[in-house]
Amino acid sequence: MSISLASVSEQLAVPYQGDGACVITGVASIEDAKEGDITFLANPKYKNLLQDCSASVVILSSKNQDAWSGNALISDKPELTFALVARNFLKQKPSEPGIHPSAVVDPTASIHETAVIGPNVVIEYGVSVGARSHVGPGCVLLSDASIKEDTTLVANVTIYDDVQIGSRVLIHGGSVIGSDGFGNAKDGEKWVKIPQLGRVIVGDDVEIGANVAIDRGAIKDTLIGNGTKIDNLVHIAHNVQVGEHCAIAGLVGIAGSAKLGKNVAIGGASAMTGHITICDNVMFTGMSMITRSTREPGVYSSGMPAEPNAVWRKNVARFRRLEKLENKLKEMEDRLKSFEAEKV
Amino acid sequence: MSISLASVSEQLAVPYQGDGACVITGVASIEDAKEGDITFLANPKYKNLLQDCSASVVILSSKNQDAWSGNALISDKPELTFALVARNFLKQKPSEPGIHPSAVVDPTASIHETAVIGPNVVIEYGVSVGARSHVGPGCVLLSDASIKEDTTLVANVTIYDDVQIGSRVLIHGGSVIGSDGFGNAKDGEKWVKIPQLGRVIVGDDVEIGANVAIDRGAIKDTLIGNGTKIDNLVHIAHNVQVGEHCAIAGLVGIAGSAKLGKNVAIGGASAMTGHITICDNVMFTGMSMITRSTREPGVYSSGMPAEPNAVWRKNVARFRRLEKLENKLKEMEDRLKSFEAEKV
Amino acid sequence: MSISLASVSEQLAVPYQGDGACVITGVASIEDAKEGDITFLANPKYKNLLQDCSASVVILSSKNQDAWSGNALISDKPELTFALVARNFLKQKPSEPGIHPSAVVDPTASIHETAVIGPNVVIEYGVSVGARSHVGPGCVLLSDASIKEDTTLVANVTIYDDVQIGSRVLIHGGSVIGSDGFGNAKDGEKWVKIPQLGRVIVGDDVEIGANVAIDRGAIKDTLIGNGTKIDNLVHIAHNVQVGEHCAIAGLVGIAGSAKLGKNVAIGGASAMTGHITICDNVMFTGMSMITRSTREPGVYSSGMPAEPNAVWRKNVARFRRLEKLENKLKEMEDRLKSFEAEKV
Repeated sequence: MSISLASVSEQLAVPYQGDGACVITGVASIEDAKEGDITFLANPKYKNLLQDCSASVVILSSKNQDAWSGNALISDKPELTFALVARNFLKQKPSEPGIHPSAVVDPTASIHETAVIGPNVVIEYGVSVGARSHVGPGCVLLSDASIKEDTTLVANVTIYDDVQIGSRVLIHGGSVIGSDGFGNAKDGEKWVKIPQLGRVIVGDDVEIGANVAIDRGAIKDTLIGNGTKIDNLVHIAHNVQVGEHCAIAGLVGIAGSAKLGKNVAIGGASAMTGHITICDNVMFTGMSMITRSTREPGVYSSGMPAEPNAVWRKNVARFRRLEKLENKLKEMEDRLKSFEAEKV
Repeated sequence: MSISLASVSEQLAVPYQGDGACVITGVASIEDAKEGDITFLANPKYKNLLQDCSASVVILSSKNQDAWSGNALISDKPELTFALVARNFLKQKPSEPGIHPSAVVDPTASIHETAVIGPNVVIEYGVSVGARSHVGPGCVLLSDASIKEDTTLVANVTIYDDVQIGSRVLIHGGSVIGSDGFGNAKDGEKWVKIPQLGRVIVGDDVEIGANVAIDRGAIKDTLIGNGTKIDNLVHIAHNVQVGEHCAIAGLVGIAGSAKLGKNVAIGGASAMTGHITICDNVMFTGMSMITRSTREPGVYSSGMPAEPNAVWRKNVARFRRLEKLENKLKEMEDRLKSFEAEKV
Repeated sequence: MSISLASVSEQLAVPYQGDGACVITGVASIEDAKEGDITFLANPKYKNLLQDCSASVVILSSKNQDAWSGNALISDKPELTFALVARNFLKQKPSEPGIHPSAVVDPTASIHETAVIGPNVVIEYGVSVGARSHVGPGCVLLSDASIKEDTTLVANVTIYDDVQIGSRVLIHGGSVIGSDGFGNAKDGEKWVKIPQLGRVIVGDDVEIGANVAIDRGAIKDTLIGNGTKIDNLVHIAHNVQVGEHCAIAGLVGIAGSAKLGKNVAIGGASAMTGHITICDNVMFTGMSMITRSTREPGVYSSGMPAEPNAVWRKNVARFRRLEKLENKLKEMEDRLKSFEAEKV
């Protein structure tokens, strides 16, 4: 794949400086770029790296234009422009529409004629697959599941009964959508399963990473809003409602019936209690322990960063002595007060 | 599906009030219930929601009976009664006993004639599958694995060699039971794998969520007790022993050779050190860092709930200043003492 | 399987004491060993358990030789010697080289004649599988992926396009290697996907547990060094570089572009921020929150171990009062100072 700077500029309606005939043959980071590569500067603190950069084209904002005299695309959103440029270099995989002979497709399923059903796929009764959607090798779609247009399930994905997946959704390998929620009622010592009768509804333009698990609702449906991006190994429990354009990083767990607004970002390995509500435009940093509803947009955090083991041990011990510390302080204040009283 | 209030009352031996001929056609939460739905009140703090509830039937305890004058099932365990009622509304999936032609089943495997072996299943030599068990699409059972009666593996589940699964077990999509434990011995700089020669034994009435991983024992077996419920994305390491009727929520990790008693509940995203013992009837709240054995039943917790980032930053800094704080306090006490001494 | 003590001693070039003709028929822990079993003592604190041990052979170091008068292998690395002995007792699975008739293999793929391609495997175009490698049931290898010699993918593993797997690698069930990194650029309210154009390169002698997810690089490749061992449910994000002989325990998450040196060990359920660098020979204990680069080898830790809920609640409250505590202390010091000033 190769494309000229002028073509890219036209394609994206982003102005360029320098030689429009310059040919771009690949993408790279600032440090690794060599002739033919296009790269981008998003964070001004890496500006000085441009001095030794061998890229043929750099995407940068007009504010940083002084740092680079070579060929450039001038964009106020360099990362976004890079994302759009990079699409030109995605591997093109040939794939014929149709159902692979090794796939097992129930005759009642409705498969659009432009859809691709890969090898060893299993599709149960009543399933529907929309136009240009791609169901990769080893995927299983249980009864009455539906996926709309231009959606891709990469491989070994499991979609449970009645789950609805929107358009332009991308689901990575091994993910499971629609498994039973973790609902059990106590009967003496024993747990009795509460049937999980809801569905999962995944909106449009959602991306779901590898080995994710999203449970179906107990009574209501579990909802994933349009444009939301979910990383690998995320657990979303029953009845959870995730708003639009959220970003949920790897190994996050969201407990049952939690409700997230729009544009909520959750850092990796955070965990959220059930039955709480997070308002729009909230960000949690990584490993947050999210136990309370939020009503104010902003950044929230918790956790103690790792320190050398000996320091940590002492701090844990001090933490446990906090009660004594408070008591001692109170006692001293009393002694001080009695002094002050005497003085008067 | 529809069923009358009187029939449900008889089915479950739970008394009703109101019109026994009332027809129930679905289940719903108190807020969402409409005519035809049955719902339940478990937590009295939601009592006031019943004022605007349109359900045809409410399950509630005699203590809360005053809050609802309509049709009701009167049960001291409303959630349990609901669980049993809701079974009537589970989707009935037709499935013929037998082995799907696309399944690859070794001739030495013993498959009960009433079992269902789905499409693209792979069953190796020596495997046994009991009566009425259901092995869903894409599941793999490696050599000499066995599953007893009335057990369901939903789809894309992997059961390793020699693993034993009990009766009435439900395993959700993508789970892996019997993978090698993480056992390595150092040989200079290198790790040498310690062969993992034990098995996994899963008891009866166990439920295992989606994308769970349970490792086989190194020498002993890994054990999951009867009636235990395991949520999604849980990691159980080699030689772990989980007692009966435990509940392990999503993203919990249990390290090697830990031993859990009966009726242990572990909140989501908690992690347990290896080689410790947890007594019966212990509950850990979410995100607990479980590093010591417990000998007393009760609730245990750890972690600092998320706060606004600015507050958190200050608290982390203060935590790191605890040593100075203690020292300062000691110094002031000395000064105070010298005062007091002078006074005398 | 049975083997004499003398044979094992010769096989491993480790001296023995006692009866060389003694026949070993199995392995067991010190507590469970019965006649015929070989066991090992690694940690001297368990020395006293040898008094009641019924093992036929014990592996122990010369330092502990006094604790056991029976048959023994004398090794300075008892655990390593045990690992090597135990290999004799691994189940031998018969497997014919060749491609199972149910596998779907693109004609352009290059499969070594000694490789085993199991049932229901899917192999896309351009894939290569080396000598004696074993691709288990339900695995999917997308286009141009390659695996070298003597590598095993157990079952239901997904290898994405262009991913390269080394020799003598073992990948457990359900793992996904090469899924897209979590890269998105903001365009107003919306997320725009950044194409993930790098690969994953897995070195030789790596082990990867069950349901792991390793993302491909965004521009660069994601790298897993030779000899590194990865446990279950680990998330490794795009562009991460893991050095040689690392050990990464279950449920660890490593964010994008983090760089680990050699011989780094990460305890279970730890999470690492992106774009940081960890030097060689660092160990993090379980549940560490790793937010800063390390330049010094050693052990690092964070987190507060679980305590009884009532104690924890009070400590959290005290933690939140730390500001008041500091202020109070400062105020008292001022009062004390004014006293001291007066005195003079």
